[in-house]
This record gives sequence, structure tokens and C-alpha cells, in this order.
Amino acid sequence: MKHIIPWQDKPSSCNDVMWRYNANPIINRYDIPSSNSIFNSAVVPFEDGYAGVFRCDNKAVQMNIFAGFSKDGINWNIEHQPIKMQAGNTQMIESDYKYDPRVVFIEDRYWITWCNGYHGPTIGIGYTFDFKEFFQCENAFLPFNRNGVLFPQKINGKYAMLSRPSDNGHTPFGDIYISYSPDMKFWGEHRCVMKASNFEDSAWQCTKIGAGPIPILTDDGWLMLYHGVINTCNGFRYAMGAAILDENEPDKVKYRTQSYLLGPAETYEQIGDVPNVVFPCAALHDFKEDKLAVYYGAADTVVALAFGRISEVVEFTKNNSL
Amino acid sequence: MKHIIPWQDKPSSCNDVMWRYNANPIINRYDIPSSNSIFNSAVVPFEDGYAGVFRCDNKAVQMNIFAGFSKDGINWNIEHQPIKMQAGNTQMIESDYKYDPRVVFIEDRYWITWCNGYHGPTIGIGYTFDFKEFFQCENAFLPFNRNGVLFPQKINGKYAMLSRPSDNGHTPFGDIYISYSPDMKFWGEHRCVMKASNFEDSAWQCTKIGAGPIPILTDDGWLMLYHGVINTCNGFRYAMGAAILDENEPDKVKYRTQSYLLGPAETYEQIGDVPNVVFPCAALHDFKEDKLAVYYGAADTVVALAFGRISEVVEFTKNNSL
Amino acid sequence: MKHIIPWQDKPSSCNDVMWRYNANPIINRYDIPSSNSIFNSAVVPFEDGYAGVFRCDNKAVQMNIFAGFSKDGINWNIEHQPIKMQAGNTQMIESDYKYDPRVVFIEDRYWITWCNGYHGPTIGIGYTFDFKEFFQCENAFLPFNRNGVLFPQKINGKYAMLSRPSDNGHTPFGDIYISYSPDMKFWGEHRCVMKASNFEDSAWQCTKIGAGPIPILTDDGWLMLYHGVINTCNGFRYAMGAAILDENEPDKVKYRTQSYLLGPAETYEQIGDVPNVVFPCAALHDFKEDKLAVYYGAADTVVALAFGRISEVVEFTKNNSL
Amino acid sequence: MKHIIPWQDKPSSCNDVMWRYNANPIINRYDIPSSNSIFNSAVVPFEDGYAGVFRCDNKAVQMNIFAGFSKDGINWNIEHQPIKMQAGNTQMIESDYKYDPRVVFIEDRYWITWCNGYHGPTIGIGYTFDFKEFFQCENAFLPFNRNGVLFPQKINGKYAMLSRPSDNGHTPFGDIYISYSPDMKFWGEHRCVMKASNFEDSAWQCTKIGAGPIPILTDDGWLMLYHGVINTCNGFRYAMGAAILDENEPDKVKYRTQSYLLGPAETYEQIGDVPNVVFPCAALHDFKEDKLAVYYGAADTVVALAFGRISEVVEFTKNNSL
Amino acid sequence: MKHIIPWQDKPSSCNDVMWRYNANPIINRYDIPSSNSIFNSAVVPFEDGYAGVFRCDNKAVQMNIFAGFSKDGINWNIEHQPIKMQAGNTQMIESDYKYDPRVVFIEDRYWITWCNGYHGPTIGIGYTFDFKEFFQCENAFLPFNRNGVLFPQKINGKYAMLSRPSDNGHTPFGDIYISYSPDMKFWGEHRCVMKASNFEDSAWQCTKIGAGPIPILTDDGWLMLYHGVINTCNGFRYAMGAAILDENEPDKVKYRTQSYLLGPAETYEQIGDVPNVVFPCAALHDFKEDKLAVYYGAADTVVALAFGRISEVVEFTKNNSL
Amino acid sequence: MKHIIPWQDKPSSCNDVMWRYNANPIINRYDIPSSNSIFNSAVVPFEDGYAGVFRCDNKAVQMNIFAGFSKDGINWNIEHQPIKMQAGNTQMIESDYKYDPRVVFIEDRYWITWCNGYHGPTIGIGYTFDFKEFFQCENAFLPFNRNGVLFPQKINGKYAMLSRPSDNGHTPFGDIYISYSPDMKFWGEHRCVMKASNFEDSAWQCTKIGAGPIPILTDDGWLMLYHGVINTCNGFRYAMGAAILDENEPDKVKYRTQSYLLGPAETYEQIGDVPNVVFPCAALHDFKEDKLAVYYGAADTVVALAFGRISEVVEFTKNNSL
Repeated sequence: MKHIIPWQDKPSSCNDVMWRYNANPIINRYDIPSSNSIFNSAVVPFEDGYAGVFRCDNKAVQMNIFAGFSKDGINWNIEHQPIKMQAGNTQMIESDYKYDPRVVFIEDRYWITWCNGYHGPTIGIGYTFDFKEFFQCENAFLPFNRNGVLFPQKINGKYAMLSRPSDNGHTPFGDIYISYSPDMKFWGEHRCVMKASNFEDSAWQCTKIGAGPIPILTDDGWLMLYHGVINTCNGFRYAMGAAILDENEPDKVKYRTQSYLLGPAETYEQIGDVPNVVFPCAALHDFKEDKLAVYYGAADTVVALAFGRISEVVEFTKNNSL
Repeated sequence: MKHIIPWQDKPSSCNDVMWRYNANPIINRYDIPSSNSIFNSAVVPFEDGYAGVFRCDNKAVQMNIFAGFSKDGINWNIEHQPIKMQAGNTQMIESDYKYDPRVVFIEDRYWITWCNGYHGPTIGIGYTFDFKEFFQCENAFLPFNRNGVLFPQKINGKYAMLSRPSDNGHTPFGDIYISYSPDMKFWGEHRCVMKASNFEDSAWQCTKIGAGPIPILTDDGWLMLYHGVINTCNGFRYAMGAAILDENEPDKVKYRTQSYLLGPAETYEQIGDVPNVVFPCAALHDFKEDKLAVYYGAADTVVALAFGRISEVVEFTKNNSL
Repeated sequence: MKHIIPWQDKPSSCNDVMWRYNANPIINRYDIPSSNSIFNSAVVPFEDGYAGVFRCDNKAVQMNIFAGFSKDGINWNIEHQPIKMQAGNTQMIESDYKYDPRVVFIEDRYWITWCNGYHGPTIGIGYTFDFKEFFQCENAFLPFNRNGVLFPQKINGKYAMLSRPSDNGHTPFGDIYISYSPDMKFWGEHRCVMKASNFEDSAWQCTKIGAGPIPILTDDGWLMLYHGVINTCNGFRYAMGAAILDENEPDKVKYRTQSYLLGPAETYEQIGDVPNVVFPCAALHDFKEDKLAVYYGAADTVVALAFGRISEVVEFTKNNSL
Repeated sequence: MKHIIPWQDKPSSCNDVMWRYNANPIINRYDIPSSNSIFNSAVVPFEDGYAGVFRCDNKAVQMNIFAGFSKDGINWNIEHQPIKMQAGNTQMIESDYKYDPRVVFIEDRYWITWCNGYHGPTIGIGYTFDFKEFFQCENAFLPFNRNGVLFPQKINGKYAMLSRPSDNGHTPFGDIYISYSPDMKFWGEHRCVMKASNFEDSAWQCTKIGAGPIPILTDDGWLMLYHGVINTCNGFRYAMGAAILDENEPDKVKYRTQSYLLGPAETYEQIGDVPNVVFPCAALHDFKEDKLAVYYGAADTVVALAFGRISEVVEFTKNNSL
Repeated sequence: MKHIIPWQDKPSSCNDVMWRYNANPIINRYDIPSSNSIFNSAVVPFEDGYAGVFRCDNKAVQMNIFAGFSKDGINWNIEHQPIKMQAGNTQMIESDYKYDPRVVFIEDRYWITWCNGYHGPTIGIGYTFDFKEFFQCENAFLPFNRNGVLFPQKINGKYAMLSRPSDNGHTPFGDIYISYSPDMKFWGEHRCVMKASNFEDSAWQCTKIGAGPIPILTDDGWLMLYHGVINTCNGFRYAMGAAILDENEPDKVKYRTQSYLLGPAETYEQIGDVPNVVFPCAALHDFKEDKLAVYYGAADTVVALAFGRISEVVEFTKNNSL
Repeated sequence: MKHIIPWQDKPSSCNDVMWRYNANPIINRYDIPSSNSIFNSAVVPFEDGYAGVFRCDNKAVQMNIFAGFSKDGINWNIEHQPIKMQAGNTQMIESDYKYDPRVVFIEDRYWITWCNGYHGPTIGIGYTFDFKEFFQCENAFLPFNRNGVLFPQKINGKYAMLSRPSDNGHTPFGDIYISYSPDMKFWGEHRCVMKASNFEDSAWQCTKIGAGPIPILTDDGWLMLYHGVINTCNGFRYAMGAAILDENEPDKVKYRTQSYLLGPAETYEQIGDVPNVVFPCAALHDFKEDKLAVYYGAADTVVALAFGRISEVVEFTKNNSL
């Protein structure tokens, strides 16, 4: 079955590598009855369309994740009740909150990772076969951690996860690490992948960085979209960049964009519960058509979509590497 | 005399308990010649219309309070000069600044409370009979305090005031207390009423809370609208909730909204001198018509108006209690 | 009955206004079985000797106050159990902790004030007639406050209390205020008495100040010993100074020592749970013999004693005023 | 040759001393291919039109300065490559970054000052004769410093520069100083000119202040436009004021506006990479026509223009002095 | 072979559960030529005496661990060169620094854990059979972590480690967690064991806590000595307490001392590079003789020894539980 | 005339490069009547003995500098009144405070530098011919700066000064710079000399560093003793190291000790107003006898003396360079 990837051609006026969907945001803050905001969400091809896991903060500003479905990847039906987790590889499925999900299909099932509240933020793991029943596994790490992102296939026989050690607050630092697991339960072989940049070299990513969508394997290695943060005198500003990691040793960074690919410049990115945030969490790609569609949270309030040519993003990353 | 309460019916598209006036903001930042911003202000029925006490920061960003008058509660004439205080129950009427007023009629006069600058913020008290002559009394408390709100009648024979002990800066904490006075001069019997919530339970009010309009006595107890604050990575976000306090022992919280009633979502609430602020300071109510009109400062820049049915707000508070 | 005030003559080598007892500390950290430290305590003439209220932190480092008795003011028997409070002018006698007591006889009973834990530190008030039964009253103020010190007689018909508005942590600021009460229950007429000094003028008291022993009425006004704090690059350093307040308008400071009277210079003041602390909480005086004996906590660990001539302290304060 | 100063008459609806150009912003964030934002820039009459030095942050958010040219001062052609510096009065022309330039013609050449990255921010100095070749000189000061602004003529035989000692971060303090140099290489005779105001007196400038455009010599002294900052609970807010300094002793402040002249109130000032910023860096003036055109960065994102009558600005400053 | 445990009987004057060695400190700061300080070190029975791993900071204040040997556990010969690690279960044995070691024999070898510098502090693991050759394994966790302490036997078939998630600085928070591993390489099943206490209940351990020596299995469960920290106004104060964890489910805390067992009270604990630190890292025990000897770092400068009866420590913990 | 340099031979038990005077401290805190502490002071050969400039904080903890004289460099007579400055090369000799002096003879006079309070700390400059009359010059730099240290001769025809840009508080950062002046009035050619080290490489100097005594010209270059600071969890700890700077280009560091030469280890260095401080401000040297005597402030309370062989200090610096 062929999935039609969401797409709009680049406007002639645009000279950038990536461009926005002209009907952004695709999901609004009040799109389900209980929600205060819907953002930082993940999608994946499913059956003849797409499934997604959405971060919907309710009007008590409690953070939780919700399943959703779409035929075209643009128009979504999001469940009105949060995902209910059953015990997976553990009975300990405590969760004070869940946010910023990622989704990936590996081997036989859809794996979900998210920021899980267990005495502070850490990386929660779950899986589903059908987006109806969900099973929660052991947290990958001790607190404090955020932005846990699985690779879409085992590497050297082990599951691999990117993550960002954090603290219990707004975390004015943050680098990307990789860890491995033989079984999705015990994790080790932790390696530092890449760090926030120097202010002089690339200020948009000088405060902290974190992995975004599931990495995409290209001929040049793993294409990893990520967010970078600068701490301005009026708060954090989040933008999106790209890096290419070695296929077999993904803790080796081959290239990394000095410039951002997409920064907050539209009203829905500049205004909202947290102004000036572009936060990518998922990407659909089609190598044959050379298309990339990135879902990103805007201003911690809504979900938006941006497009690019895979080949151009890779070339840009190689040619503008830090 | 019957006061026509400002009102618009709920739009059919609205599923919320409270909704905004469609011509918000009702007062703009430059509505008097000296002003930089007009917000966080209080109104009260007066003669055949309404009187109000308005926080107008001038273009030196000095904070002061101004009297104003309106026939309909929507269109206001605000004096161009700040209120001039005479000595009330004290000769010590020092005041480095005045802001965030509340007004209430008790027994024979209109009492005004505000954040008064006396070696830092504390609660100033004054009264007027006619909104022409104003008399300043002893400050209620030692610094540092903000959001002093009187009950509209004596409780157990004493005046009662809600307040929020604060610090001298932007105060990243804050709970609501109640204190009593036999004479509006000496205060005691301080009790903690309610605290900022846990992040997990209700994040919009997890950093600090403070009483808003004068509490309204309902069959279920005192309806207290209040503001709650979450400290996002880009600053404080203020929203409005409601609580119901025991009629005779108002330090006992019977119900308290887990969800906010109104959060910053309109442009005039999201943009301004302090973005993302909804800060209620006054409410008009009419039990017979089951109407509630709440005046709130938006983005520390303008005054806006929101409406609701008293009965629905009470029911919502009871049914969605933290 | 004549109380023999603790005393040693000034050593001939000493050129200072005040000097230490040569057998300091008079009370050691482990002087009762449960204690981790005994410091910042108050004494008062009682019967044919002295009674005291002692801050004894136990080995869980819980803070509480204990009664004690002495014939000579130097050798003390401290109760092994903390003071048990009965309801005084209120049933609300919650107390998470009690520390830094002061004691004073007014009219018919001994009044005790202390830092009382009620949603943070505030000023607790209690009384006793016999140092056996103790009665707790309403807290004087809203949190946060410390160093509540009563005057030994009514002023203009009202009880008067010095205090220092604080915050919930280690409080890097702090000025002395006065408040009045007609009944030891409701407090008002709050006035700023004196502030931390400028760094340039008197750095030892430039971070915060707080009243110490009960003020002593002299011909020149109220002699108020107080502590001042400087924030060095290795923490707070507490020393002792003196001020003279107007007899009838004690918010008026007539004189205030630019130099400290006693600073941490002995080992027991420089080493302990909190190094470099001299913290006076009580003083005995005898005008006829021109003697002053000051009890102070040293290094938050032990109790020590210092002596001076009242007349010399007053003269020094007048001649070296800030 | 006569320079036509950019100009629009005051709108009849405007009661303020200064007003905005109605087609603001005059330069947009993406006006050169590499830019993320163009703001805080300087212009000067040059040949038959104007030249300018522009702060263009690229999409890596590296800060650099670019030359630009305009016939009318409104429509600008900005070079696509940053200014390349040659060695001026030193071989040491290290520069980690350059931002917030000012330009002034003195005697025979155009002098440029900017915030220069040399182990943190300090004041860089350069000159050009033609805006084609640029020569970098010794940094004026040790780090940390920002907002170095030269006077347009020697004072008492020496070059004079305003600056604001800062720190290496977002600097929550800052006063304006003046320093002198016989040779644009060695600097001394540092004097404090003016400080951030008291919160009570003029809160918009109570956190920090910094000189803006090159001062303009009027009959009353040097007209110095400057920015002032207030630290709101949602970040820094920058507005513009004016001061008049003594002609021969410019460390003497004769007048200083208590009110701001222009504060962030338009969307392009309230939204952008750093919301709520009005930051003036240059001004064109024509005494004969009594015109003043001020270039200011808005929201750290774009360049905007405001107008006023010199005489009115001076009068306002004199009549509304702090 | 019988190990003679270091021992002194309790002084008759001592009423506490634990008491100090009267010739403390047993190791001085300059006991090896390069050292600035020797503290926070671990010992274990080895051959006919004892072996140890010592934290010796050199005079560049670089932190490293050194092997040492002793016949009696009191007089030690410490190697002059730090331990040189070979590759164990990984080739990645990067280490910016090593400090605060613990040692335990499990099955066939001596395992060492320490705070390992890998992009910040995390838990390093190594082993030795003979204290001559040492092998470094994979770090247990992502940064940031400290105080990794292994259990002396597998629990439910897996290795078990206590640790304290931290940050990269002085960490003003910290709770104890447990994690499991099938193979000393991959870790999971992370559980929170116990948290810092409330200030009111037990202030000496209200800021952070961390496991100390290897837990000792008693009839009541695992006896875990740990350090607790209070943040005084003059810095952190470290004392020692005890907890008893369930034998089979060691994340369940059965008892935990409200009072500390040993706090800084001797000069060598109160003065040094970091004053007021008692930091236990190892304990020798002999059930038959009912003896416990605890090695602790004092003031981050020297090593000291304290004694107790196992049975009394357990009883005290059970009878004085928080 | 030959100056007898203060001296004691190295104790046989000492293996270090430098050793302490066995009668330290040589000056006590109360050695003049007004003083609270005497420390961080400078000495210089003068006439047939020595003159010095002493930092004596009085009992108001006001900081000032005092002249003193000694025959042997060990026993000092310090004036009881602070140095009174006359106008030198400027009439502007404002000074809120003076501390941490250095003294050096250049050409025809003794130059004094100190930390001068002018709107915060900056570098004051003065001179004297006879230590009776003193003349104050222009401050070298804008605030904020500390530890200004002159070279004892012109370099390339200009005066040269080391300094450390600081902030207005306790400054948790700090690197050493050099600046030049043709005339002791105007300063420029600022260069970074050396920075605080990495924590991993040399933690004792990883927080901040500052020049100490006047540099000494050796065959290997300028021997610069300096202080380094580590921020422990209980505050700053100051120790002393050495560097060798290029003779003609003193911004080039040839060698720099990885280990400290002298750290706080004696009681008078570990206890006092600021514990754990060794702060060198002056050194006497005699090449012929190969002697070096360093004066340092201990614990911000007293003055102490340490000795070394110049040749050994130089060799150690070369052989243990960072």
C-alpha cells in the first residue's frame, strides 16, 4: 500500500531548504474538547493512512498523550481520552505525566517513547500493534531525561535510543546522547553524540539541543532533525536543524547544520503559551519522490507542518556543516 | 435602582463556562493622555451606573490608581489625574506606588485595597463615599504582600481580607491567606486558605495563586475567582480559576477548579507589556439574571471583560474540583 | 529580691566596649541528651534566679524551644523535653518548628516570641506565668517573618513588637520594622524602623539586620542590640551592634553603631554548624551597677555571654553613630 | 549637497512627541539572503545619500555588521557579505562577533563602534573613508562592555565615548559612563554619566540603560537618545528616552526624560526573536527643518523608523525631567 | 582467615550509638607526596588484611583513586600513583576524573564504583581480582549521577546498584534510586528508594541524601548507611544516618533514622577544604563480635573512623524511624 | 644599602617548593585600634627597611589602606589613620572604599594600585615619593575590575598593568588581562593573558584567577604569582600558584603551575572572616641569595608570610606547567 505523503511544492518566492504548509497550523489548540493546547506530537504510516500520538495538555494543564488517525496526514481525528496503558514488560507503569511523544515501527510493532513523569522527567517506553491497545515498559533511564528518540532499526543487534539528560526544571543546558539495549528493558553503552554549540559558531543552538523525529537512514548516514535553543534575554527560542550520524556508529556526527532549517517567524510560532518555539517531533519521508514532511509543535500550542526535499536537506547539511 | 450588568450571550460555538466580550479590550492602553497601559482594575455599582478604580501606569511606568465612571460598565471615563488620598485612620499615608486595586462596598462606604509601595509592596487600604474624596488608612500588613481582597461583609463580626504574602521581586511562589480585623486597622488570626497546586495535578496554577475579584456569596459558599500562574520556560503565564470557600469559615476550601476558566488565548492577552496574562480584579453579578461579568487585565496592558452564568461557574467548580 | 547579674570585669588588655566571658561557651551543644546544638536563646529574671527559653535543635535537626532555670545566669538546667503549648488566645496553635526565642515580662506575665513554623516562618507568641505552663497565642503576622522582639512595656497604650519581614529561605535581605497591638492578637500600624546599611558605610550590617534582646529603656531612649549580616564570598557573617530608638516613637532611630560591638573572632564563634555567627537574643541589665550581660548564640551551636557597661554602650552608640 | 532627511509629518491623531513611520519596518528580517534578522543598525549621511552599518544575524545566529547604502534613508541596499576589517591602529583585530554598531563622522573619516567579541563583549572601534575599506582599531576597553557611542566631535581636545559596563550574559544592571582618549587608542578619565532610575520614579528605565544614537549638539547641550529597560516577570522590555548632557562636561546630566519617548506598542516591536524591544542606534537630524529621524531595532528582528521635531524633543526632555 | 576489625570500645562518657576513633583522622591530607587531600575512600577485607581505594586529590586538585593496603585497617600504605585502568567489558574507558569510590566483593572479584567524569559526573564501574590490575567497564548511567553503591550480592538474580541522580554542579537536591543489571553492562528497572526529608521532620537530611558504604544484610534487611545534607546559610553540612531496606525488594524502606548517627562536631570535621562534612564511604562489620567500623571522609580533607555495635545501630534505626 | 629579606630556611620535614614562616601570622586582626582585620597587603623596600600599604578593614567593616613601616619586614608599625590622598593627575579622586593594594617602585616613585570604589570596584592608582604624601590618579579602567597589578618597569615604552575584569558582587568568574598606558592616565591595548583553568586540568584555579604580587623579571621571563579559586559546595577556596610570562610580550604565558604552591591548610588560613583564603599581594626577592618572601592575606583576617627559592619556584613552574 502506498502512503500519500502530505505535500506542497516550494513557493517560488522561497529560497530556503524547507518551507511551511500554507494552511498551518494543521491542528489547533482547542481541537479536542478538553485541550488547552496540542503540540509536539508524532505520526507514523498506519494501515492505509496515518496514526499519531499527540501531546494534548488539558485545561488543567496536565500533560498526556492521545492517539489519533488520519487518511492524509493533514486532517486528524484525535481521541478525546488519553491513551490508557497496560503493563508491558513491567508492572511498574507509574506516570505522573506524559509529553513530547515519538513513534516508530520496529520489526513487529509501533514503539512509543515520551517524557514520562516518574519522580521528575525520564524516558517512558511503550508499544502498540494497533493504536488501540498500548503497553507500557520500564523507563529507559533514571531521571532526569527528555527527548528520548528510538532509531527505526536495531544497530549492531541492539535497540538504540537518543536522549538528552536534563534536570527537573527548564534545563538551561542539554546535549544529545545515545544508549543501547538488547531487550528494551536494560540500557547501557551510553555515548555522547553531540553537544550544544559555541555561541560564536552557531548561537541558535548554543543553550541546549535535543533529538526530534525518528532518524532517517540515507546513503550518507542517519539524518537526524533536532531542535536547538538559544537563551535570549526574553526566554528560550527553539529552532530546527539537521545532523547526519554515521550509519553503524551513530555516536559519530558526520555533519551538522550551522544554520537552522526552520526558526520561529510565523505568528503561530511566535505567539502562544510559550512564544518562539519550533519543536519537531516526527517526519514522514518518501525517498522515491524525494519528499520530507516534518511535524512540529509551534509555540507549545499547535501542530504545524513543514516540507523539504530529502536530498536538499542532506546536501545543505553536508555543505553548511558546523 | 437597577444596575444593568454588562452582558453578551454565549456564542453558540463556545463550549466553555466563560466567554469573552466580543469587543474586547474595553479599555485601551492609551485611553488617558498620560497612560502607558491600563489594566488590573476594579469596578463597583455606583449611583445609577458604575464607578471604578483603574490601574494606569503612566509613560514613566509609574503605577497609580485612578477613578473612573461609566453608565453601562463598558464605556468608561477615567480621570486624568490619579486619586489623591487624604489621611483616613492614620496620618501615615506614604505610598511609593499603587497598583492592582480592588473595590467593595461594606456597610456605609466603598473600601479600596491595592498593592501599596511602603518599603516594598504591601496591602494599602482606603475608602470613599463618593469616589471624589478618598481616605487612606493604615497598611494592613508588613511588606511583602500583594493581592489584598476584602470580603463584602463582616465575617463573625470582623472584616476579612484575603492576601498573598510575596517578596520584593517577581515572586516565584505565593499562596492565599486570610486575615481578620475588628477595625480595619489591626489585623490578625491569619490562616492559610489555599496553596499553589502540584505540577502534576494542575500545572496552570502550580507556581503561585492570588485572589481576584471580591468574593461573591452563593448558596454554596464564597465564590472566589483567582489567578494562577505557571512558570514556563518563557516566563509567567497567568490564567483564571475559581474556588468556593466555606461561608463562615472561609479558610476552608470546599471546591477549587482543576482547570482554568479563562486562559490567555486572544491576541490582546498574548501580546503586550507582559505577554500571556489574564488577571481578574473585579466582577459584577446579578443572581436574578444569573449573570457574572468579570473584568480582567490582559497582558498587563488593557482591560477586558468576560461573562458567565453564576450557576454554571459554581457547578463547574464543584464538578471539576482539584 | 535582688538578682545577681552575671559578670566579669573587663580584662585590662581589652580596649573594646564589650568583652566576652572567659569561660565561654556557657552552654554546649550536647548539654541535653537529645540536642545537636543549643544557641540563640533567651533569659529573664525569675523568682530568686533566672529562667530561660532555649533553642535546642535535636539530632534530627528539628528546632524547638525548651525551658531552663539557673541561679546565677551562667549555670543552667535545661529541661529535656520541649515546651508544650496549651491554647492561649486561640485554638490554632499549629507549629511546624520553633526557634530563636525571646522572653520578656510585661505587666503580669512572661511573654515569649519566637520564629514559628506556620506555612513558613512567622512570629509566634506565647506566655507563661511560671515557666511550667505555657500558652500559645495567635501568630502576630503573616509569613514570612523572623526576629520578633517585644518591648518590655506598652507604648502609647499598645503592645509593640519589632520584627524582620523575611522570605522562606536564607533571606539575603532584611530590615527591622515595628508593629503595634491593642490586645496581642491583632497587629497594625506597621512602620519601618531601620534598614540594612550601605556597603560603603558599614559593611558588617549591609545584607540584613534583625533585633536581638528585648530593648532596654535608658535616658536616651530604647537601647536595642541587634545583629547585622554581611554576605562574604564564603557565606553570611553575623555580628552585633546597638541602636537607640526614641522612647515614645520607637520607629525613630536616634543613633546606631557604625562599628559592630562584637564580631565572630573566637573559635566557638568561628566554627560550628554555621561558622562566623554572633547572634544576641537576650540581655540582663542592672542600671545601678551599670552592668549589661548579653546572651548570644555562637556559630549556631552554643550559647555564650558578653559583658559591657550600659553607660559605655550608650555613649559608644551615640558617638559612633552611622 | 543637501541630504533629504527621511520624514513623515505627525499624524493628527498623535499626541506624542515622537511618532512612527507608517510603513515600518523599513528593513525586514530576511532582506539579505543569509539573514535571520536585521536590527540595531546605524546610518549616516554619505555622499549624495546615506550609508549605514547594519547588524545582520545570519541563520546560524552569528552576529556581524554589514555595509549598506540608500538614496533616501528608507530604501536600503545592504551588502550580502559582512564588513571585512583590515588592521587599523593595531594588528590585533580578533573578533568573535560584532553587533549593535554606531557610526559617526569625525574630522576626516567615519568612525564605527560596535560590541566586539573579545573574550566576551567589549567595544570595538573601526573607521572607513568610503564604506568600502574598513580598518579595525584597538578595542576601547577591557571586557565586559556594550553600547559604545562616540561623540561627533572632540571634547576638550579628546575623543569622547559613552559606554555601558556589562557582564558576559544578559546583564541585569547597567549605567552609562563616559571615557576620553587623545588618540582613539588609549582611554581614560572614566566618569559615571547616569544610572538606571529608581523603580518608583521611572520604572521603564530602572533595570539598565544604554546610549543609543550619536549625541546631537543642541543649544541646550548634547541630546542623547538612549534605551532603558525594565525587567518584567516575562523578560526585559526596552524603550527609548532622551537626556541632555552639558556641552563641555558631558558627564553632567542637565535633563533626562522621566517618561519614555517610544515604547514597544506595535506588533513588529512586540513580536519577534526578542519581544518588546525598541532599541535606537542612529538618528539623522536637520536643525533647519527641525527634523529628527531615529532608526531603531524592533524586537531584535527588524529596523524601524520614528520621527520627531528636535525642538519638541528637547522641550519635552527639559519639561519632563527626572 | 580471620580479619581483625578496627575497634575501640565506646567511651564511658558517650551516650550515642556511634563514636569516633580517638586517634582520628587515620589518614592525613598530605599522606602521599602529591596529595592535597585524602578522603571519601573505601576499604574491603583482602588477603590477611585490608585493601582500599582512596580518593586522593592532588595539588592541582585533580581527583583520582589510588589503591592502598593495610594489615589492621588503621595504618595504611597508599600507592603514590593512581590506579591505571585497563579495558574491562568495553573499550570506552574515558575518564576526566574519578572520585568517591566504593568497593565490594561479589562472587569472584572486587567491584569498584566511583563518580566518573564523562561529560559530567556519572557512575564508573571497574573490577580487580588482586588490587594490582584493574579493569574499567561501561559507565552504569547517563550523566549526571553520583554515589553509585553496589549491593554485595545479586538480588533476584541481578546486580543491584544504588545511585543518586545529580546535576553538573553542587546539586542542591538528590534522592536515592536503585537500578538492576543482568550483566554489569546494561541497567534498568530503576526505582526510587528514598528521598530527602521534609525540613520539619528531619532537617539534617532535607536538602539531599546519598548512599554511603556497601549495604550490610542483617536479619531486618539491608542496613544502608547514608549521608544527608542540610543547606545552612553558610553552605552544605553533611551528616550520616542509617536506613533498613527490604531484603528482597530493596526499594522498600522499612526504617530510616530521623536523627543523624554522626554529625560534624570535631575540628577535623568542621575545618578543611569543605567545612562541616561527614561522608561515609565504607564499613567493615563482624556480626559475631557485633562490631561496625565506618570509614568516612571528614571536611573533604582527611579520612576518619567511627565505631558502633551493629545491633545497636539497627535497633536505633528501628526505634527512631522517620 | 642592602635590604635584609625576611627569611627562614625550609624545614627538613617540608617537601614543598614554598613553606610558611613559623610565627605566622605576622600581623593580627586587631593590630591597630580600629581594625577588624588586616590582610591582603603590600610591602616594598624603602630607605633602610621596608614600607607597606595595608588593607585594614575597620570595625564598621569599611575598607581602607594604611601606610606602615618596618625594619625587618616582619615587625610592622601601621599608621592608625588611613592614607589621605591628594589630587595627582586628576581632581577626581572619589573613592567609596579602597582595598587589596599593591605597591611598586618605577623610575622615580612608588606607585600604588588598589581596588577603588567608584560606582563599584575598579582599579585605583596613586603614587608617593615618601609614604607620607600620597597622590591619587585617574582610575585605570571602567568598573568593574579588581586585582590591578603594575609591572615594575615600562614594557616597550609603556606602563603595563595586569587586572581582572569582575562584576559588582562576589564574581564567580575572572581571567587575567594586561593593558598598557603611555602616561598612567589613558589605558589601552588590552590583551587576555590567562584564563581560569578547566576543572579537569587544575580545579584549584577553575573558578577565577587574579594577579598577586608585582611580577619579578627572571631569566625565563616575568614570574607572576597569582591566586586561583575553586567554588566548593561550601564557598570559594583561594590558593596561590605561579606563571611565567614572556619578558617582552607579557600577554604570552610560557608556563603556569598546574598545582598550587600554597593552599589553605593552617588554622589561620582556614578560619577567619572568610575561611580558606590564601591571597598573595606582595613579594620581596633577592636574586643573589635566591630568596623569595611572599606576603599573603589569610582568611581575609590576618597577614602571613611564606618563603621559597626563586630558582626552585621557577623550575617548579616550568616542570609542572599546565
